[in-house]
Amino acid sequence: MIGRLCVIGVGLIGGSLALALRRAGVVEEVVGAGRDDNHLGTAVALGLIDRFDTNLARAAANADMVVLAVPLGAMYSVCNAIRQDLNPDAVLTDVGSAKQAVVDVVRTTFGKLPACFVPGHPIAGTERSGVEAAFADLYRGRRVILTPQPYTSRMAIRAVKAMWEDAGALVEEMDIGHHDRILAATSHLPHMLAFALVDSLARLDERAEIFRYAAGGFRDFTRIASSDPVMWRDICLANSEAILDMMRRYSYDLDLIADAIAKRDGEQLLRVFKRAKQSRDRLVV
Amino acid sequence: MIGRLCVIGVGLIGGSLALALRRAGVVEEVVGAGRDDNHLGTAVALGLIDRFDTNLARAAANADMVVLAVPLGAMYSVCNAIRQDLNPDAVLTDVGSAKQAVVDVVRTTFGKLPACFVPGHPIAGTERSGVEAAFADLYRGRRVILTPQPYTSRMAIRAVKAMWEDAGALVEEMDIGHHDRILAATSHLPHMLAFALVDSLARLDERAEIFRYAAGGFRDFTRIASSDPVMWRDICLANSEAILDMMRRYSYDLDLIADAIAKRDGEQLLRVFKRAKQSRDRLVV
Repeated sequence: MIGRLCVIGVGLIGGSLALALRRAGVVEEVVGAGRDDNHLGTAVALGLIDRFDTNLARAAANADMVVLAVPLGAMYSVCNAIRQDLNPDAVLTDVGSAKQAVVDVVRTTFGKLPACFVPGHPIAGTERSGVEAAFADLYRGRRVILTPQPYTSRMAIRAVKAMWEDAGALVEEMDIGHHDRILAATSHLPHMLAFALVDSLARLDERAEIFRYAAGGFRDFTRIASSDPVMWRDICLANSEAILDMMRRYSYDLDLIADAIAKRDGEQLLRVFKRAKQSRDRLVV
Repeated sequence: MIGRLCVIGVGLIGGSLALALRRAGVVEEVVGAGRDDNHLGTAVALGLIDRFDTNLARAAANADMVVLAVPLGAMYSVCNAIRQDLNPDAVLTDVGSAKQAVVDVVRTTFGKLPACFVPGHPIAGTERSGVEAAFADLYRGRRVILTPQPYTSRMAIRAVKAMWEDAGALVEEMDIGHHDRILAATSHLPHMLAFALVDSLARLDERAEIFRYAAGGFRDFTRIASSDPVMWRDICLANSEAILDMMRRYSYDLDLIADAIAKRDGEQLLRVFKRAKQSRDRLVV
């Protein structure tokens, strides 16, 4: 049970968490915080939060749990705004898709990494974003990865774990560098590929026709290119090293396919496509 | 109304067409042809075809409409097998995803391009393949592109058009080179990207974990990597020039994103991601 929950950034991720916890009856009060009155008013109207405050320090001051659900690029200013007013018993967590970058920001802004801070990342989302996209079941059956640091309080970890479990998620702990690498592979790289594909095709002369003849496979393949551009710019900057490494590997492997096509090496193409199909059929459920 | 329809290659594409036409009551008899007795027996059992024959020449000999629904790599031997026994009034069409290659094969095997041959391509399919994957509504509301050649009979074109419309599709004609380029962009390139991604990740040390943490976006993005490897090898070889051109453009654009990440150029990243999101939201319905 959480007394007062403060969600900073009430979009798809923060709003869905708030709603899930309210529905589960495990939180007494949810305060939404952010910059935009209209947006936060919508969150109240949609029943995601009880009330809102655009003064972040005040919103966070008396909360028992503070969730940072803003894009990574906004973490620095948000941490700066709240750091002096946090309740001494408060638990602080975040939902960022790149964890080392958030830990660095929290360490810098707080002077040292507070024991109450539990870096977290729900592996969930859709290509839609914003408060209207929030829904209570977003986290049902999905994984949340926590990447606690050496001095993170076990009590704080337990509180964050309980919160996500109450929202329906499966919670695991993972080494932070490992998290950033795994996410670069499974999420950040595919987003780069999809953004690049749509942008590349959209600049061809025949673009109207190209999209007209796109079938279901194309729709599925490019869905993630409809994701929030600001969020993804921030992820690129926050996890640049792991993303660049994955992009280099990928480009190398894609070039091998192009080489095989150029050389008309059907056996090599068949080998790669079979291996890919087997992996996908076996590993992606 | 088609008297006898001969479908050579009764998989997802050929089987679904046969089933749709039988359901619509616009065909008197459907003869399935191919190499594999078991497979064709299943097609009879599933009600896709009336009967089958593993002798392609005999299966095609008295048909009014012959549909070549085999992978592109099998077109040559199939055309060779049937060319001498086709009924003089028969209409011949195919479903290949690369049209110039099929036209070349038909021209080579028949000596000259028969007026009765109408190159065709239904823009439909799923990542599943084979006779068990066939279903009657596969073509409902989907586009079929015909790429008639200078001497193609208008009567044959009308017959093929009517057949696909009876299966629920929207039929259009297109210049053959244009078709091959559009398809390279919307279908062939995305398949290369998906195969490359899954294969690339599957060869990392952490592959089991990587796929375990893959969320919905990854599932959608990689769905087409479960497509039939033989079919895709054949498409690569049959439309190699257009595919290589698209892959070169794509790699160039992907490198620009990597450069922007390396230079921490957030503005450039935001520009590309916004453009991609706008295009996708506007152009892909």
